[in-house]
Amino acid sequence: MKKDRIYLFDTTLRDGQQTPGIDFSVEDKIAIAGMLDAFGLDYVEGGYPGANPTDTAFFARKRTTRAKFVAFGMTKRAGISASNDPGLAALLDSQSDAICLVAKSWDYHVRVALGCSNEENLESIAESVKAVVASGREAMIDCEHFFDGYKANPGYALACATTAFASGARWVVLCDTNGGTQPAEVRAIVEAVIAAGVPGVNLGIHAHNDTGQAVANTLAAVEAGVRQVQGTLNGIGERCGNANLVTLVPTLALKETYAERFDIGIDADMLTGLTKLSHTFDELLNRSPDHQAPYVGASAFATKAGIHASALLKDPRTYEHVTPESVGNLRKVMVSDQGGKANFINALKLRGITVAKDDPKLDRLIQIVKEREATGYAYEGADASFALLAYRTLGSVPDFFHVESFRVMVERRYDANGQLKTVSEAVVRVVVDGETMMSVAEGHGPVNALDLALRKDLGKYQSEIADLELADYKVRILNGGTEAITRVLIESTDASGARWWTVGVSDNIIDASFQALMDSIVYKLLKNRGEAGKVAAE
Amino acid sequence: MKKDRIYLFDTTLRDGQQTPGIDFSVEDKIAIAGMLDAFGLDYVEGGYPGANPTDTAFFARKRTTRAKFVAFGMTKRAGISASNDPGLAALLDSQSDAICLVAKSWDYHVRVALGCSNEENLESIAESVKAVVASGREAMIDCEHFFDGYKANPGYALACATTAFASGARWVVLCDTNGGTQPAEVRAIVEAVIAAGVPGVNLGIHAHNDTGQAVANTLAAVEAGVRQVQGTLNGIGERCGNANLVTLVPTLALKETYAERFDIGIDADMLTGLTKLSHTFDELLNRSPDHQAPYVGASAFATKAGIHASALLKDPRTYEHVTPESVGNLRKVMVSDQGGKANFINALKLRGITVAKDDPKLDRLIQIVKEREATGYAYEGADASFALLAYRTLGSVPDFFHVESFRVMVERRYDANGQLKTVSEAVVRVVVDGETMMSVAEGHGPVNALDLALRKDLGKYQSEIADLELADYKVRILNGGTEAITRVLIESTDASGARWWTVGVSDNIIDASFQALMDSIVYKLLKNRGEAGKVAAE
Repeated sequence: MKKDRIYLFDTTLRDGQQTPGIDFSVEDKIAIAGMLDAFGLDYVEGGYPGANPTDTAFFARKRTTRAKFVAFGMTKRAGISASNDPGLAALLDSQSDAICLVAKSWDYHVRVALGCSNEENLESIAESVKAVVASGREAMIDCEHFFDGYKANPGYALACATTAFASGARWVVLCDTNGGTQPAEVRAIVEAVIAAGVPGVNLGIHAHNDTGQAVANTLAAVEAGVRQVQGTLNGIGERCGNANLVTLVPTLALKETYAERFDIGIDADMLTGLTKLSHTFDELLNRSPDHQAPYVGASAFATKAGIHASALLKDPRTYEHVTPESVGNLRKVMVSDQGGKANFINALKLRGITVAKDDPKLDRLIQIVKEREATGYAYEGADASFALLAYRTLGSVPDFFHVESFRVMVERRYDANGQLKTVSEAVVRVVVDGETMMSVAEGHGPVNALDLALRKDLGKYQSEIADLELADYKVRILNGGTEAITRVLIESTDASGARWWTVGVSDNIIDASFQALMDSIVYKLLKNRGEAGKVAAE
Repeated sequence: MKKDRIYLFDTTLRDGQQTPGIDFSVEDKIAIAGMLDAFGLDYVEGGYPGANPTDTAFFARKRTTRAKFVAFGMTKRAGISASNDPGLAALLDSQSDAICLVAKSWDYHVRVALGCSNEENLESIAESVKAVVASGREAMIDCEHFFDGYKANPGYALACATTAFASGARWVVLCDTNGGTQPAEVRAIVEAVIAAGVPGVNLGIHAHNDTGQAVANTLAAVEAGVRQVQGTLNGIGERCGNANLVTLVPTLALKETYAERFDIGIDADMLTGLTKLSHTFDELLNRSPDHQAPYVGASAFATKAGIHASALLKDPRTYEHVTPESVGNLRKVMVSDQGGKANFINALKLRGITVAKDDPKLDRLIQIVKEREATGYAYEGADASFALLAYRTLGSVPDFFHVESFRVMVERRYDANGQLKTVSEAVVRVVVDGETMMSVAEGHGPVNALDLALRKDLGKYQSEIADLELADYKVRILNGGTEAITRVLIESTDASGARWWTVGVSDNIIDASFQALMDSIVYKLLKNRGEAGKVAAE
């Protein structure tokens, strides 16, 4: 059976630009258009040429090779001809393959926002679409407020859609501009549009996430016959965002109910680039990827529960709705307070440690982890601290060095020039092979000072930790007040590009930081010894 | 027409605990159960007593007053009687109103995970439900993998559901454990369960967000007849999370298509507490609320400059699917300086400060706030610091006292008994009316020591701050590494029951804490002076 083609339309650079806190530069737009094009989407909407200098500059050249490059704008104003409308002229001047024009389709907005008659608006739609078609480009109409407009005045909303189609629009896109429409309503209204004469193969859907259902509304429209879906990378967009293409693409490609009926132009090999696409986009926005994002989140294939984890090991597929590999993601089984024995064995196996199920040391390790997690440790986020604890409990870890004492001081006072100044200083006393070394350092705060002092002189090990760097430092207060228990998580990295996390917990933030710093250094020393270091520790 | 009652079931404390990176302490659980109970949900599932020390301690007492308090566990094992099953015994020992038992309903999992026959599993379901009913509690069965199980073996999945119902289960909950089921499938399978003899008024839905459709799947089940919906606060949960109750509640309460048919036990007045509930929960998790969250996000009713913003000003309701006030959120138009100014004037008015629109001091205040927020301050979470800044910029604040210098020291060393010991000590030098006072204090960490020393002797103001208490202390690292910028938020309270938040930002955590502590004390002194204090400051 020949599958129906669904066309993927990305509006990250246009509607995504409406996200509070997101402003793309021309360079950003060029980079993102390249990523979207390389991934294999059908349409890339780049912005609104003529509306601002960034978008005008971006449309000075065509920015995609494979995907159609789309300019966005408004239908011509009432009372002037298409050829005399400056906004439309800017669109026709842009280097685009297709032009998407937004048109009011709710009579209330025609009156209040445009201030023209219903008939004048229909005439604007018709003339504008014809002008785009005459320029040799693909024409699309975004029917703004289509669903709310339909509820208020179904005849007029349908007239907007059928007028656009009759005038030559390749796509008539039904927009849930306010984002409040429910899936069952979307389905019924799409069916009404098709019944009114616009075929599904010419219909698109543009959904917003104001009730958390942008993806569901899009799929409901597809089920009702629509064949173009609009969305953005990671669901960015105005207010609560647009339909998330990163969720829609694998759902359409992998879920049987859609995959057996539709072809989205993305094959299995292309799909494995999805996680990277999503994460690279977040990096460009300088924000942490959402761990819980469907398909691509770090937690999307992570299991914590004891009961699930043991079954997962027997047959992962029965606990995963799709395989992590299919979208370029990874499976994770985490250690935690709730983990069963199988969970622990698997977590250890991932670190190259095999231990028998009935080894009493394993029970001891599980007990220690549970006790520590009860006091605030979180080993699932601190792989390296967990590995050290396992090595120490199941084998042994060499006493590379010993910190006999430390002292950290923060002083705020007026300097000689009468300026307020805060100084942080740390002193540590380290013993290596019976030899005592004292180091002192100043830092940007007490933890930074302690970190610098600790790593200043480790004697014969000093050269080994030269490439150790702290990449991130997180603090969580586990209960209220300044007497609270503090959990510190530290992310470390070295020249090899490896990253590891360590944890410390105490009612004293300096003490908690000290524990995490110590674990990081010891882990680095073990890591430098490679498999030999690990085996020695077992 | 009498509306159908939909029951709201919260599993934040049980399935939400499966979220990677989230581990609740007993105190966390008590606080969250209180929030859920106060908001007005019907069921609060607290965890798995007997499975770990936290949950066992949490179930030592009933933790809700209005909502039913639910313990979670497994059906009895095959081959032993319900009365001899230790897991079931722990559940029956817990202080709960209802017990929810998870049961396998996919024959594959019965074989592979339980290793028993299909019949033995049905017998376990029946006997376990009966044991719960006999204990006088409400019995619920979570049919694990129900939808995938139904697809593999419809007859067996239905047998699990009907057996549970026939044995006396008040609720049979259909779980989409792997989260991959699509809304149309949910609808069809729920209809099949009802046709098989379990009435919709006894059915629940438990959806996961692996294809971004947990909310849509839940609503599809409700449309098909289900009358209990399960979910979590802010959609936390295993992998990609559970259905988000914070999205479901207003959708069911405000969207006509549901509101005219269903009663969810949350009236319009209760619903206005939704945004606060969601944000307070994120604060407890020490994470930033998602700006794009449906209904409650800071951007959910925000409009960026452009075509929508000007129309929005003409009539907000036509660009909003519900009113922000209905869920306790706010409208934001980031349209121009003018819009920004109106926001400030409003924020000041809320604090009893009236300022003219064209007062140059107002421009100065806006500029300072913008500059400070660019460096990491967050005044929306620190009312008292904002008020102090406004008083200082628009009027003046008395110099009650002056901290000339402070010194904080943390020392870790072996004590006389050879035990490692960490000591924190702070010294402050305070000037009041030209008189210098030195105070020293030890604390549980450097910030606690500084806090105690600061409040030890404020001379003539000392008696005034006797009832000042620090209620909470939060640290957020704003960028990576131990050299990072640190933001400290402190919540204070006093004998009057008032609460106020102050903020400090620095690359030194002690300095940031000092700023927030100082703001808290000065705000308290101004507050003690009541309206007089405020007016003097203006």
